[in-house]
Amino acid sequence: MGMEGIDIIDEGGAVQVFWPDGSNARFHAIWLRDNALDARTRSAGNGQRLITILDIPTETRISAASYEAGDTIRLTFSPEGHETTFPAEWLRARVYDRGQHSMPGWTARDIEIWDANLQAAVPRGSYLSVKRDGTALRDWLFAVRRYGFAVLADVPITSGSLTDVAELFGYVRQTNYGRWFEVRAEVNPTNLAYTNLGLQAHTDNPYRDPVPTLQLLSCLENTVEGGESTVVDGFMVAKRLREENPAGFALLAGHPARFEYAGSSGVRLRSKRPIIELGPDGEMIAIRFNNRSAAPIVDVAYDDMTAYYAAYHRFAEIIEDPAMEVSFKLAPGELFIVDNTRVMHARKSFSGSGSRWLQGCYADKDGLLSTLAALEETTLKEAAE
Amino acid sequence: MGMEGIDIIDEGGAVQVFWPDGSNARFHAIWLRDNALDARTRSAGNGQRLITILDIPTETRISAASYEAGDTIRLTFSPEGHETTFPAEWLRARVYDRGQHSMPGWTARDIEIWDANLQAAVPRGSYLSVKRDGTALRDWLFAVRRYGFAVLADVPITSGSLTDVAELFGYVRQTNYGRWFEVRAEVNPTNLAYTNLGLQAHTDNPYRDPVPTLQLLSCLENTVEGGESTVVDGFMVAKRLREENPAGFALLAGHPARFEYAGSSGVRLRSKRPIIELGPDGEMIAIRFNNRSAAPIVDVAYDDMTAYYAAYHRFAEIIEDPAMEVSFKLAPGELFIVDNTRVMHARKSFSGSGSRWLQGCYADKDGLLSTLAALEETTLKEAAE
Repeated sequence: MGMEGIDIIDEGGAVQVFWPDGSNARFHAIWLRDNALDARTRSAGNGQRLITILDIPTETRISAASYEAGDTIRLTFSPEGHETTFPAEWLRARVYDRGQHSMPGWTARDIEIWDANLQAAVPRGSYLSVKRDGTALRDWLFAVRRYGFAVLADVPITSGSLTDVAELFGYVRQTNYGRWFEVRAEVNPTNLAYTNLGLQAHTDNPYRDPVPTLQLLSCLENTVEGGESTVVDGFMVAKRLREENPAGFALLAGHPARFEYAGSSGVRLRSKRPIIELGPDGEMIAIRFNNRSAAPIVDVAYDDMTAYYAAYHRFAEIIEDPAMEVSFKLAPGELFIVDNTRVMHARKSFSGSGSRWLQGCYADKDGLLSTLAALEETTLKEAAE
Repeated sequence: MGMEGIDIIDEGGAVQVFWPDGSNARFHAIWLRDNALDARTRSAGNGQRLITILDIPTETRISAASYEAGDTIRLTFSPEGHETTFPAEWLRARVYDRGQHSMPGWTARDIEIWDANLQAAVPRGSYLSVKRDGTALRDWLFAVRRYGFAVLADVPITSGSLTDVAELFGYVRQTNYGRWFEVRAEVNPTNLAYTNLGLQAHTDNPYRDPVPTLQLLSCLENTVEGGESTVVDGFMVAKRLREENPAGFALLAGHPARFEYAGSSGVRLRSKRPIIELGPDGEMIAIRFNNRSAAPIVDVAYDDMTAYYAAYHRFAEIIEDPAMEVSFKLAPGELFIVDNTRVMHARKSFSGSGSRWLQGCYADKDGLLSTLAALEETTLKEAAE
């Protein structure tokens, strides 16, 4: 220890913090003032900020700074004269004085992209455990965040029980298909999902904005031949495309695609979003891919369209590569959940004899990730006790 | 007439279509084949595409093309030998052989950005009309799409009635706040919205991903002094920022911000999305702005942070400019809806005497825009009959 310290730099425009392990980082005065943790800046009760950016003088400077015992950084801001403290570790977890990502299409640290090698370790849980045991629920949700899908067994074989699963971590997203919907072969299907045709790997409802970010598909009957479910990691597909054809990747990420669905009366869903969606910092944030609802592409210049189509074609080829696919056949009482912004799912065609009865519903990732974060916090606290 | 025609160009790689009014555009063979409307390509029942991109030979060419009476384009594709027809007007509505937008931050044609001048023409409807009359509903939803907000009067003064309004056009988005929530001053508020403090103009729940794209706020009691509602068009604010400081606009659009909310136990909501979100083609698609839940910005390089904060500060100043604001005081039985990806709403502080009881709920734009598009189609059909 003893290495820690703090220097005021840039005439008070920033400080440089040195941690005991030898690392250091700079923080601007305006950033520190805006993010102060004290009770005059943030509500002690709910953590919300009480001030606005307009309450902070634009000429804000650090007039005094010290690194105190107990890992506390003490700062005074001029001209306000406002004094505040930060835990040094809190600051270290929020360092922005570092290199930024330069390669588009990187993925967040809490996810792991995969291919067919994951077949040997399909993430699974049991409803009997996750509904009772916070640790089991945390582990199952952790798998969903990490891999973008997971199977759950021991789900009651009763109509609508999949919504109980969604409510363990979040809320059902109701749509024109209902709170949940039947996936069975029908005579006059409003959607090709309601046939016994195979369905190419796809994300659901790309014609909806916002897209449902989670989908659950549960099995009540399955005595047909065929009808296996497969999943493909769209982020891995996009990464492979980028590695072999960076320009093609840039075309799919750099232009909106269009999707539409008008299969029922009173429903005219349309969206305009790219097949590969990147954040402004190049992070991979969503995949949209669905041959059934893809609408004419009209936002690609004439001179780029041939190369755009070639990239789209190659993207589809990689999706179909068996080296990318994990498959399983759902038994009654099993469901799977997919992150519908990342993992594509497919269905193999099935025979006309026997019955296959699935139910589907949508939910959103905000609730799932919030519940997971809260469970992780609880576990950390318990581990520390 | 008589000007129309079609040429095969680029050795069959594309055609050039000439319309009777003298306009023309090129379409690639692969694009035309992929978007064919015939019953072998798309389901006649539900309009979904029956083929995948992998079913189309990559060497697809146009081997024959003609412009027939009745405004029909007839095409034959090799090597498939597939023959199909397009209405010439269908193609004209989907021309992509044109200039693309070059200035980031443009807005779609079906929206109109506004400032305080809209005060004289606040879009309004009556629940008594819109629930009964498709034309009245269409007009009210049209205003929501166009201006990003609208007021609705004659709503039953009963708890939860705002969800009936949401269900006229779509579906409630349930969250940890419930299907709907009370907005009243509370003693130990989990959210500063539940106080009598003024609230700076903001979008709701930016810490949620996907963000709720619509919010409804209905009034059941309002006898306090103050407590007026105001709305500000975030797209107009962003446009003003871009005009006076293009580099600042690019900083806010080019870096993710962070938002978080942890005001209740079991809830740890976090998001990473920019304050100004642009599509890959530069279209303005969303604004996120909320001082209460803004978390430390960690995705801006140290060297850019001062300029980023200056742009953020200026963005907030423009939001507060009275020249941007439209305001109204809700009476019991009135509600307003906002496009929460575009229009910010604010509340003036109010006195402790009297009572102010509002209820809020979230919904999504997919349902609203779908219902509006279906109503517009019906109206067009009726007008043609």
